[in-house]
Amino acid sequence: MVKRVAPFKVADLFINRWSPRAMSGESITDFELMSLFEAARWAPSSYNNQPWRFIYAKRDSKNWSKFFDLLVDFNKQWAKNAAALVLLISRKKFEYNDKPSRTHELDAGAASENFSLQGFLNGLVVHGMEGFDYDKSREVLGIPEDYTILAMYAVGKPGKKEDLSKELQEREEMSDRKKIEEFVFEGNFKK
Amino acid sequence: MVKRVAPFKVADLFINRWSPRAMSGESITDFELMSLFEAARWAPSSYNNQPWRFIYAKRDSKNWSKFFDLLVDFNKQWAKNAAALVLLISRKKFEYNDKPSRTHELDAGAASENFSLQGFLNGLVVHGMEGFDYDKSREVLGIPEDYTILAMYAVGKPGKKEDLSKELQEREEMSDRKKIEEFVFEGNFKK
Repeated sequence: MVKRVAPFKVADLFINRWSPRAMSGESITDFELMSLFEAARWAPSSYNNQPWRFIYAKRDSKNWSKFFDLLVDFNKQWAKNAAALVLLISRKKFEYNDKPSRTHELDAGAASENFSLQGFLNGLVVHGMEGFDYDKSREVLGIPEDYTILAMYAVGKPGKKEDLSKELQEREEMSDRKKIEEFVFEGNFKK
Repeated sequence: MVKRVAPFKVADLFINRWSPRAMSGESITDFELMSLFEAARWAPSSYNNQPWRFIYAKRDSKNWSKFFDLLVDFNKQWAKNAAALVLLISRKKFEYNDKPSRTHELDAGAASENFSLQGFLNGLVVHGMEGFDYDKSREVLGIPEDYTILAMYAVGKPGKKEDLSKELQEREEMSDRKKIEEFVFEGNFKK
């Protein structure tokens, strides 16, 4: 089992947040879900352009199957117990001048992290996925071409690891990370 | 002056973090800077691929001018008081199979937000910029074509608003955000 170790000072929420798959199948309220969007809302973005958009379905809603059917089978086996599925997309052009934005995906990534961290702080599970049909999601959710489809997030109440399949149980643990010197370089790029 | 209001539950750090430009011109230690990278380190990414790379120069180092000269004049006027300039790039392909990653910029954005939030928690100022020469930075920092250049961050100790130019003083306040209903949609995309 991975024990996360941080050689430098870091706030607990960053090192304790992770992406479990075990969810209980319980619903969450609008109020519980909106808290995650509220956190995403305050992310920084180039020119404060806020290119992120979130499209969601709650498990009890008529929209649920439309979202759930977009997932690959691997993700369906555990995300069936999520309380909400949330698709993140970003606007490719700035709104104030309609010129291409270099950073819209980066900015949406900042929003996504606030979203995930707030979920963690609220005792929920948030698990990001790229295992879904990007093209079909554009079609069935009516997403215009001037938005990039980025990722899907499953949000739910924590479940029991033992209720996952054997295969998923083996993956159900905190992952480790590269060492700082593998991704931080002084002065110039180093391989 | 903008007063930030959150209709839904949100942790203080998300709503209190902002991007001042006033910095004191003081240096920071490696230990202070590494804390921000440590937070970035624990961001989630597709297949835990961690595509983010940070290249930095501290103000007292021989690399400083190389980074500083990349900035547009507008940013030079205040970033001259930063303690470090940090360039964020991301690897376009997964490392485990060398296939294109859909989410490398999104993932780097998550890391960037951890970086910014940890800076805020440590009492530092972090200000992201796209006002620099992307092409020249690739050249002078030796960044291979298989990495996307995303953004530059100025990190510093907080300074006095009064020491900024008149023009910058007017911008030196927390910015507001869209309302939740402007970027969160239930069931399908809404304009």
